[in-house]
Amino acid sequence: MDKMIFGESYLKSYLREEEIRAAIYSRRGMLQEVLAGEASQAEFLGWHKVETWGVSQVNELEALAKKVQEEAEVFVLIGVGGSNQGARAGLKALLPNGKTEVVYAGCNLSESYMERLLKYLDGKSVYIDCIAKNFATLEPGSAFRVLRHYMERRYGKEEAARRIAVTASPGENLLRKMGEERGYDVVTFPTEIGGRFTVLSPVELFPMAAGGVDIQKMLEGAKAMEEHLKNTPLEENEAVRYAIIRNLLYKKGYKVEVLADFEPTMEYFAKWWVQLFGESEGKDGCGIYPTACNYSEDLHSLGQYMQEGQRILMETFIHILEEPGEVKFEPEPMNADGFSYLDGKDFTDLNAAAYQATIEAHAGGGVPCMEITVPKLNEYYLGQLFYFFMMSCYLSGRIHDVNPFDQNGVEAYKNKMFSILKK
Amino acid sequence: MDKMIFGESYLKSYLREEEIRAAIYSRRGMLQEVLAGEASQAEFLGWHKVETWGVSQVNELEALAKKVQEEAEVFVLIGVGGSNQGARAGLKALLPNGKTEVVYAGCNLSESYMERLLKYLDGKSVYIDCIAKNFATLEPGSAFRVLRHYMERRYGKEEAARRIAVTASPGENLLRKMGEERGYDVVTFPTEIGGRFTVLSPVELFPMAAGGVDIQKMLEGAKAMEEHLKNTPLEENEAVRYAIIRNLLYKKGYKVEVLADFEPTMEYFAKWWVQLFGESEGKDGCGIYPTACNYSEDLHSLGQYMQEGQRILMETFIHILEEPGEVKFEPEPMNADGFSYLDGKDFTDLNAAAYQATIEAHAGGGVPCMEITVPKLNEYYLGQLFYFFMMSCYLSGRIHDVNPFDQNGVEAYKNKMFSILKK
Repeated sequence: MDKMIFGESYLKSYLREEEIRAAIYSRRGMLQEVLAGEASQAEFLGWHKVETWGVSQVNELEALAKKVQEEAEVFVLIGVGGSNQGARAGLKALLPNGKTEVVYAGCNLSESYMERLLKYLDGKSVYIDCIAKNFATLEPGSAFRVLRHYMERRYGKEEAARRIAVTASPGENLLRKMGEERGYDVVTFPTEIGGRFTVLSPVELFPMAAGGVDIQKMLEGAKAMEEHLKNTPLEENEAVRYAIIRNLLYKKGYKVEVLADFEPTMEYFAKWWVQLFGESEGKDGCGIYPTACNYSEDLHSLGQYMQEGQRILMETFIHILEEPGEVKFEPEPMNADGFSYLDGKDFTDLNAAAYQATIEAHAGGGVPCMEITVPKLNEYYLGQLFYFFMMSCYLSGRIHDVNPFDQNGVEAYKNKMFSILKK
Repeated sequence: MDKMIFGESYLKSYLREEEIRAAIYSRRGMLQEVLAGEASQAEFLGWHKVETWGVSQVNELEALAKKVQEEAEVFVLIGVGGSNQGARAGLKALLPNGKTEVVYAGCNLSESYMERLLKYLDGKSVYIDCIAKNFATLEPGSAFRVLRHYMERRYGKEEAARRIAVTASPGENLLRKMGEERGYDVVTFPTEIGGRFTVLSPVELFPMAAGGVDIQKMLEGAKAMEEHLKNTPLEENEAVRYAIIRNLLYKKGYKVEVLADFEPTMEYFAKWWVQLFGESEGKDGCGIYPTACNYSEDLHSLGQYMQEGQRILMETFIHILEEPGEVKFEPEPMNADGFSYLDGKDFTDLNAAAYQATIEAHAGGGVPCMEITVPKLNEYYLGQLFYFFMMSCYLSGRIHDVNPFDQNGVEAYKNKMFSILKK
């Protein structure tokens, strides 16, 4: 299988193989159940088999995406958290050359953001999709109200209805009801998938496809990873090892995990990862704090801290092997700029050197480092990464003895907010 | 004085006033020296008096910016870390309605980023500014090589020279030398200001002015804050109190500080803050780990963690009081969307409610919270914030017993990288 590789060579001075093996051995029954999908968690495991809500839906989603591409220059994705992170991660990472641009709404409560968005939409052909599992969340609720009325004013009710989709769970649900009664396009938000695990389901596949992502290829990658992980013995299983290792390091005092990458377009992939792990594990006063660094830029920001700050950090590098590119450094006569060592190299060489130097320096400076290497940044490998991290997160939550599928802590501010707003 | 307010009302259960007073009292000599500017640190304090490298330069910088606006649709800021964070923070926060758009280069080593940038520039009128204090850093060095040659190919050497600026320190410096010999515009990078303290100096003021920011107003705000902080007794001095409080909390086990805001355009301000504190304090195996949350979006990502994760977090909120805006919620007949509680409100009401609910919930859940409130997001108050945090950082580094002006830790990866690249 042509796949991502999980590398542990920069962990040697922090963890021994016997520790890892012992930790795997002591939880082997549970780990095996998680890899197979625990029967007791079936109501949350709609993502566990990529076939169920991914592969089986592809043709229908691609047909709907094609309609959007033919009619709209701009696709407005209304959603927040689990309802936009996955699609945005894919679209921003891959920058597909689609005819339709995807923009975002319902992910904040900023007045000025909405004003700018409405100005931007004027004069462009628009399609909107409101994604909200149960449609109780304030951000998509308020943004959809404004944008729906905007569409109706602009296009009239009938034409607007052809340009609106709702992505909602089946059954009793006002969003779905509106969609069905008014003749919007209706996409199903699977009941048995929680927000942060939706990336390979219709919820996120539809906007990605509308923006030009090859979702078929992404699902192929995810499915290959699923089969690989479900058929690899625990001791060699990369998702199991990653989950076990980060928890062993956490117990040794490494309280923060930094996801590091060297490609600017991966910034939103890192945000997706932060939500996945932060919301799944930050419970009971515990859990690794997940955060991200986008290098080489952040070497000039947090690089000093990574090297010499509190030794409470572990770092997981996403290492994308790049191809040599089009941009060459033409020599500068007389070495006038002092950068003659660039001659004959390209950015790919520089980025590779920065990667190698950084992981060595950080590992040598007291930060246990892990490596996830993929041959290329494309749909196929992104699909692998999405599945790999979701499975790892499920494993890790169980190892850490929390329920990775709830998020009761978010009720605290919501209750206060709804009381202020007299909901 | 019309100014930002530092609020401590959500700290009550975490710190007593006597602890704060005692900590101030025990370091009062040092604190007073820092507020006045320590003579021993003069070589790093070019930013300490806003007059020196800010107010005195405004007319010249505005004239240069005017030339750029007349000639260029796109201004390419080539720089990384201290050489782009401040200007980018200002431009992204304020989104000035300038004729010239500012884009960024030399802040990563990505081949595909440079390819996209070059495509974007084609057909547009371009001006580039390479900002690099000593011109040893790889990112600006490599990007300037590529973009300088691009400009020469496109415009010919003579016209290209009129469209290139270099921002470099005086004296022996290849960047400055190139600028002087080739007839580029030359802006001075003050020797006595380190990268992360440059935001109110020509280094960052020039690109901000070129992009349409009113730098005069920004400096007025900064100067008002300078005078205020330098003339307020230690016990009531907000910068002193902020610096003292975060260090007291750190000693009590709050190891991570989250800068939280509720306005999407403040994302890059937070990145500026992360660099400022991370690079100044992450030393000797110590220092608060600085990170950021952009709410309300991140309530749906890290909200669960903030409420119930490891209790190692303190949170500093930037609270911008917004004016009611243009966007209104029109009622939905029959409450079809279930959001009838929006009727008669606007986004400003919602965001204010989210702010209030979040700070109460987090403070109640075990996170000591501080508040920095500004009446409006504009140049004047942003100038206040920039100065406030730089002075706080200087104070905090001293309280924490590190040199806030060095960053020796970044040499580790650089040495390895240069050896790989055979520099």
